[in-house]
Amino acid sequence: MGEFELLAHIRERLPAPGERVRLGSGDDAAIVVPDGATVTSVDALVDGVHFRREVASATQIGHKALATALSDLAAMGGEPGEAYVVLGLPADFGEDECLQLLDGMTALARATETTLAGGDLSRSSELFLAVTVVGHAPGAEDLVARDGASPGDALVLTGEIGGAAAGLLLLTNPDLAIDWRVRHEMEGQTRQWGEKTGEALRTRQLEPTARLAAGRALARAGATAMIDVSDGLGGDARHLARSSGVSLRIDADAVPLAPGSGEVMETAGRDRWQLLGGGEDYELLACIPPSRYEQARAAVQEAEGLALTRIGAVEAGSGVEIRLPGGRLLEAEGFDQLA
Amino acid sequence: MGEFELLAHIRERLPAPGERVRLGSGDDAAIVVPDGATVTSVDALVDGVHFRREVASATQIGHKALATALSDLAAMGGEPGEAYVVLGLPADFGEDECLQLLDGMTALARATETTLAGGDLSRSSELFLAVTVVGHAPGAEDLVARDGASPGDALVLTGEIGGAAAGLLLLTNPDLAIDWRVRHEMEGQTRQWGEKTGEALRTRQLEPTARLAAGRALARAGATAMIDVSDGLGGDARHLARSSGVSLRIDADAVPLAPGSGEVMETAGRDRWQLLGGGEDYELLACIPPSRYEQARAAVQEAEGLALTRIGAVEAGSGVEIRLPGGRLLEAEGFDQLA
Repeated sequence: MGEFELLAHIRERLPAPGERVRLGSGDDAAIVVPDGATVTSVDALVDGVHFRREVASATQIGHKALATALSDLAAMGGEPGEAYVVLGLPADFGEDECLQLLDGMTALARATETTLAGGDLSRSSELFLAVTVVGHAPGAEDLVARDGASPGDALVLTGEIGGAAAGLLLLTNPDLAIDWRVRHEMEGQTRQWGEKTGEALRTRQLEPTARLAAGRALARAGATAMIDVSDGLGGDARHLARSSGVSLRIDADAVPLAPGSGEVMETAGRDRWQLLGGGEDYELLACIPPSRYEQARAAVQEAEGLALTRIGAVEAGSGVEIRLPGGRLLEAEGFDQLA
Repeated sequence: MGEFELLAHIRERLPAPGERVRLGSGDDAAIVVPDGATVTSVDALVDGVHFRREVASATQIGHKALATALSDLAAMGGEPGEAYVVLGLPADFGEDECLQLLDGMTALARATETTLAGGDLSRSSELFLAVTVVGHAPGAEDLVARDGASPGDALVLTGEIGGAAAGLLLLTNPDLAIDWRVRHEMEGQTRQWGEKTGEALRTRQLEPTARLAAGRALARAGATAMIDVSDGLGGDARHLARSSGVSLRIDADAVPLAPGSGEVMETAGRDRWQLLGGGEDYELLACIPPSRYEQARAAVQEAEGLALTRIGAVEAGSGVEIRLPGGRLLEAEGFDQLA
């Protein structure tokens, strides 16, 4: 099967285009008629850097590539519109795997009402993907950038973090999964708890969720600045603080960690607070006036069944300060990503 | 220099954003307010497939990546707006080369008034680029797809083709350049002619031009279908014929070949008509009612100083028929790309 045949095969599997799309995949370019502002982001995923073919299925790789791109739209409060996909295909990545990868992507596209409106394929020496996503909003003022936080705002986080980093440790260290199960059984947990919890952590790593509804709810509720936690809570807080020209104070004890993630870290001989530097959870970190917090919390719960937790505050100054239980301070500079 | 420092360096070099851009590079996503329809295309370029680091400078690679993406906008008659760039950077591609690559891209972005509005970097084992471009038009009806050709339309081509394929032969076969110079000197050409002509052919391969002004002129003049010649005249004619549900008849003798390209082919022991299968010239192939041809020809000359040549006709049926001098017929299926 050549490139053109593969493209024809791919096109057959695409869900119907959204209403704004006047000409979809198959021409020189797609034609879209937006009805307000657009919000556009592009993400690269490379084998061995952003995923590992040894531990992720082709379907999971396709899902993750689109999910991480959509997460940037979530972080702006945009409504997903179109996606454009580049695939670099090595000789040992067969057509079946290619179509499975696309199935993972189209399933998520359907669920999020995203149109796969174009793409390009190339031979390459390693598997890579580049996904461009375009979202929509009535106007530019309905979208939330990183630069609007003010001293006095509350710092809030959707869901739980640490799961993706703990899941990666379990996936890449098979012995660790056994050690961890022994450990939690000694602590009186059931074997079933360990298996379910481990599976949930691996899924956080392999099949992330873009918090699209939560992002729109936060934007409507009055978030002043927002970012998705892709590089790690400490690192992404630093990006937001720098863009807004403020200082962020985070109470580590208030940060919700994914169940089991702290135990996995400790079993691996690491400090559980390193999870604050572990990326790829794709939760949303936002700043919001304290008077809006309750409304935002209810809206995020309603939109996505997700907790919204106050984890700190915006202050005048610069940088990020993380206060650990017992009063020890960590500079966010000290966090490296887990890899 | 880490990813974030390199990104900061890159942002400093970017030209000022266009008027539609409300938030450029540096946030989760770019915010743009289009004023009509958008036209979006994505192109992948991989080392060894679309360019060769041995013969192309980093600046040329950056130029070519943006030019080939913009060519798809030209083929729709769109006005260039924003570009989003993914770079996969191998360990042996240094920061200086990375910034040179970007200089090649920003120079073309400035010349075409394209805003580099976002991007992503990753480590990779080989150099690759993925460029997404977004163009604009007052309405979807102002853009030209591949599917509107009707029997009776004239088939027209901008500029000359064959130069990129001949240039590639010269670049990848150093002996051929010598043989060719000897040959044309024996035919009474001067050495200077050979050097200038050879350089022009190499430039066609290394630094292609997107026919943006010509594309808009053709759209305004009433082109019914249009495509850029990236895969080769025969192959791209086939794409257009299939989309429009028509047959295309091409008179090979009427197709303008780049000066010297036929001689290079013959020196290499190949049939010069194989140039009709050689891609990467990025000229525009369009269909237009014959009554509009003179107006279109004048508009393309005015817009880009470029010839517009009638090379054939649209007929009822399917497929592409190329008539060689002497009456021999070639089916476009018989053309392979030169590589």
